[in-house]
Amino acid sequence: MKCRVCGQPASISLRSYKTALCDSDFISFFEKRVRTTIDKYRLIREGDSPVVAVSGGKDSLSIWMLLNGLGIACDGVYIDLGIKDYSNRSLDKIIKVARTLQRRVFVFRMETLLHQGIDGLARALRRAPCSACGMVKRYIMNKVCMDKGYDVLVTGHNLDDEAAALFGNILYWKKEYLWKKDVALEAKEGHLSKKVKPLFLCSEREVAAYAIMNGIDYVYEECPFSVDAKSLVYKGMINRLEETSPGTKLMFVKGYLKTLKDHQSTEERTGETTYCATCGYPTYSDKCSFCRTLEKFDIPQTVKFDEYGPYSVDSEQSVVT
Amino acid sequence: MKCRVCGQPASISLRSYKTALCDSDFISFFEKRVRTTIDKYRLIREGDSPVVAVSGGKDSLSIWMLLNGLGIACDGVYIDLGIKDYSNRSLDKIIKVARTLQRRVFVFRMETLLHQGIDGLARALRRAPCSACGMVKRYIMNKVCMDKGYDVLVTGHNLDDEAAALFGNILYWKKEYLWKKDVALEAKEGHLSKKVKPLFLCSEREVAAYAIMNGIDYVYEECPFSVDAKSLVYKGMINRLEETSPGTKLMFVKGYLKTLKDHQSTEERTGETTYCATCGYPTYSDKCSFCRTLEKFDIPQTVKFDEYGPYSVDSEQSVVT
Repeated sequence: MKCRVCGQPASISLRSYKTALCDSDFISFFEKRVRTTIDKYRLIREGDSPVVAVSGGKDSLSIWMLLNGLGIACDGVYIDLGIKDYSNRSLDKIIKVARTLQRRVFVFRMETLLHQGIDGLARALRRAPCSACGMVKRYIMNKVCMDKGYDVLVTGHNLDDEAAALFGNILYWKKEYLWKKDVALEAKEGHLSKKVKPLFLCSEREVAAYAIMNGIDYVYEECPFSVDAKSLVYKGMINRLEETSPGTKLMFVKGYLKTLKDHQSTEERTGETTYCATCGYPTYSDKCSFCRTLEKFDIPQTVKFDEYGPYSVDSEQSVVT
Repeated sequence: MKCRVCGQPASISLRSYKTALCDSDFISFFEKRVRTTIDKYRLIREGDSPVVAVSGGKDSLSIWMLLNGLGIACDGVYIDLGIKDYSNRSLDKIIKVARTLQRRVFVFRMETLLHQGIDGLARALRRAPCSACGMVKRYIMNKVCMDKGYDVLVTGHNLDDEAAALFGNILYWKKEYLWKKDVALEAKEGHLSKKVKPLFLCSEREVAAYAIMNGIDYVYEECPFSVDAKSLVYKGMINRLEETSPGTKLMFVKGYLKTLKDHQSTEERTGETTYCATCGYPTYSDKCSFCRTLEKFDIPQTVKFDEYGPYSVDSEQSVVT
């Protein structure tokens, strides 16, 4: 198998693109595709101040590296869920990348504010860990943008993540979620930052290859709480279809985006957005889930971030505020 | 495992309904559900003259028996695709049921009109066999209604068929098919008969159980041309999901029907229906695919049906016109 660009031995075969590439040409191909996604969907514009939601996994570390490499300077934000060893190892990897990039990282520690990790919180709220985690993450990631002056939140969601979530929403026709997914979700001034997913059209396998080829040291294991997550079952199913019909996953997600546009243009824009009376975050009731959680535990609204960096090239120190 | 109704040993467990039933109570349960579907969706009304599209498989023979059992008298129509042994065995089973029901069967023989079976036709049209077969079946099933005075065409499509087709349409976002599926498709006076699917909400497993418990002698094998059909891959996938989350299949199809209603009510009804200049069948161009096929082979438009029955109780004769 030879690289379609340079003729040298190929290191990755991309069946959905009917091509094969060597490390160096794959990296160019991948970065070009992300750049095209950013431009086509206007994810990040000149003068924007983006921050990347980093978890320590391949997706978020790759997009963080890639954006800075493309000249789009951005810091990171990490949520320490209090999953002991897993959370600590994740932060280590993140700090390592922050040093390489000479960027800043904000860290929200769940245990500091909520006096418990995701495990305890999920039990206290009688929610599945993934559900409680999602609620906290959406809130805190938005909060860092509001508090620290970033206007675009970048997440590492890849094609497989989107396909699996979409699949689950369609399987049960979850109307409240189905037409809400997009490459970019626009800001609601003063309430919600813009959210973008530059890896929306890159498969998990491609992102993993990009991370490995670039020597990015990431946490390989899935989050211990996600083991039984249905999304992993859906990913497996979609990947089996992909094996027999390469390109299916991409067609599924791209077809959705196209249908979404039709849907948005024909559908009446109904319903005013309402905001949490306590913190201003969008909500369907008078108070958002996060503020209700704080209230439940009698905790005042004082979200704080630890701040690491920005690092200079040789610095081993971190600035904690 | 005991029958939830009578307490006798159960013969079938229905996990999606969280119940288990004996033969007799399952048959009642199944027939009641089909009756409810017919009434709720107004599939067949007092005074309608329905005909069942029979293939010799469990679904069409079951619904044929069941409808007649419910007092909805209906004949059958069969398309002999010229798949030698398979087609002959199918017709044998159909005639057997026609005798039991004392009903008539119309038979369209592809080889009589087109001088070739589905295999040859598919090759000549450069279409997959399932695609060519679908085109012929839709046309001929409609034709028998128009020519023989039936106003409702009943097909045996079950929940698994619908879920798999829906899955394929969504996976590739086939807009032209996606919102066209329904339990009932209304007639276009003088052009298209009403089409209904009373087994829309009954799983393949349930229909098979019903057929077996009623001693219906049906063709077990799938059509030899469907072996590689993607629909079988999709059915397998959906059934694996069903195993871990019973009820998924039903929720998927019911959720679709609900979404379809929303979709129909918000969507502009655009585009006039156009009809084939030769035969009056709905088409997107000036001539329908079937008439174009006849033209290609220089065959005049003379669709004829062989007619078997109606049978009296002890008659061994068939009336062929």
